[in-house]
Amino acid sequence: MKQRTVFFVSDRTGITAETLGHSLLTQFEGIRFKTVNLPFLDSFEKIKDAIIRINEVSRRSVDRPIVFSTLVNPESREMIASAEAVFFDFFGTFIGLLEQELRVQSSCTMGRSHGLVDNIAYGVRMDAVNFAMANDDGAVTRSYPRADVIILGVSRSGKTPTCLYLSLQFGIYAANYPLTEEDLEKMRLPVAVAPYREKLYGLTIDPERLQKIRHERRPDSPYSSLRRCQHETRRAESLFQAEGIPYLSTTTLSVEEIATTLLAKTGIERRSF
Amino acid sequence: MKQRTVFFVSDRTGITAETLGHSLLTQFEGIRFKTVNLPFLDSFEKIKDAIIRINEVSRRSVDRPIVFSTLVNPESREMIASAEAVFFDFFGTFIGLLEQELRVQSSCTMGRSHGLVDNIAYGVRMDAVNFAMANDDGAVTRSYPRADVIILGVSRSGKTPTCLYLSLQFGIYAANYPLTEEDLEKMRLPVAVAPYREKLYGLTIDPERLQKIRHERRPDSPYSSLRRCQHETRRAESLFQAEGIPYLSTTTLSVEEIATTLLAKTGIERRSF
Repeated sequence: MKQRTVFFVSDRTGITAETLGHSLLTQFEGIRFKTVNLPFLDSFEKIKDAIIRINEVSRRSVDRPIVFSTLVNPESREMIASAEAVFFDFFGTFIGLLEQELRVQSSCTMGRSHGLVDNIAYGVRMDAVNFAMANDDGAVTRSYPRADVIILGVSRSGKTPTCLYLSLQFGIYAANYPLTEEDLEKMRLPVAVAPYREKLYGLTIDPERLQKIRHERRPDSPYSSLRRCQHETRRAESLFQAEGIPYLSTTTLSVEEIATTLLAKTGIERRSF
Repeated sequence: MKQRTVFFVSDRTGITAETLGHSLLTQFEGIRFKTVNLPFLDSFEKIKDAIIRINEVSRRSVDRPIVFSTLVNPESREMIASAEAVFFDFFGTFIGLLEQELRVQSSCTMGRSHGLVDNIAYGVRMDAVNFAMANDDGAVTRSYPRADVIILGVSRSGKTPTCLYLSLQFGIYAANYPLTEEDLEKMRLPVAVAPYREKLYGLTIDPERLQKIRHERRPDSPYSSLRRCQHETRRAESLFQAEGIPYLSTTTLSVEEIATTLLAKTGIERRSF
């Protein structure tokens, strides 16, 4: 199989370069990509070291390496472009066009580069993560007035990862509360969440999928029986419908997709990029 | 202040379009950007609705809207390009050049689009999140043989968010264990983690910063005194040095930066993109 080495270069974490680069690479079958992340290239010294590394790979390979870059600094971009590789400039390709469109010079052109994604409200995100951890699985409920969203669902429907992702990635204050057998028998909202109806969002899941997940956790228990999973999810969905609570099925969704869908449907705005 | 509406369009979550787009926009001062995420545009019907929305904004605005796109499907890209907006094609700009370089047609050109970032090992990530939650703060230690990394540090040095991020974003099995006063007095690794020396990674933090964080949690307690914070961080750093455990300071780093640095230094490979 053909092989190519791919470098992700960035003056910050390189996560954007990796994500976009990876999405481009997955469109190509029959080639093995060996990927190397070179993050935090925030000095010319580090850029020079990166070029040496890229050139070494180039000399040992049949085909030249690929470089995906989100470098902001114009001199750094120019330097990396001189390496023995094919250079895909995710940042530089667009910044000039954006300057034309906005009829304003950018900070990086003026030598006052901001770096990539640097104006994140760090404090808010960490506070949101602490909130999600403290408000997991209905542990405490007194902070609900501060919550942006309170996620409801049966055990293992995806509540915890969704709340963690919302807090870590978007700085959103997300609590979650389990629907118990008792709630589902009575077909009533748990008392603790009922006063916050406008913040509630439901998760459901295909019972067969739920059965598998629960089985891994507690094999061959009543908790992981298909019958119980069917019963619980059916009642939960009926409850959401009866109470007019928006909900979605997590069966085929990644945690990013659940979180993004929730934001799109509720209109809650992310606090960090 | 001048104002522009910015749309992020994607056939998936739009997170990549938002992140790269946001990093470009932060280079421009003096313009207020109103951002709208239009995710999951995975049918021509939805693309048409998006175009209607963009065109409505265009008609109401002095300047045309900006569209940042990670759409994979070539027909979708062509359709969105016809909207009354300036179109920045984060995906299409590069896929053709990449085809030339690789001398292979891409799946999306051949109409077998993979979508953006769809081959994530969902199961692994969710398992990793469960692992991080179960192995938070030294709660249990019997799963350490499965851990990719065990993070050590004093209370509030950033262990929990780091583990959650490593698991959610990268599918890495990350446990964390607190360094207690007793450990720091004895200057010995906690017994539970000592057998896993090669998996250990330390976090430290500037004592003034730690004092602020602890003060928010427990105001004016011995726990949040500057003296205690200075003592604990000094001892923790000495312990890391004496035991040859790599460590970094989280004082000025975002959780992405901590996680990415840890990967770069340890060579642990991410399991998901």
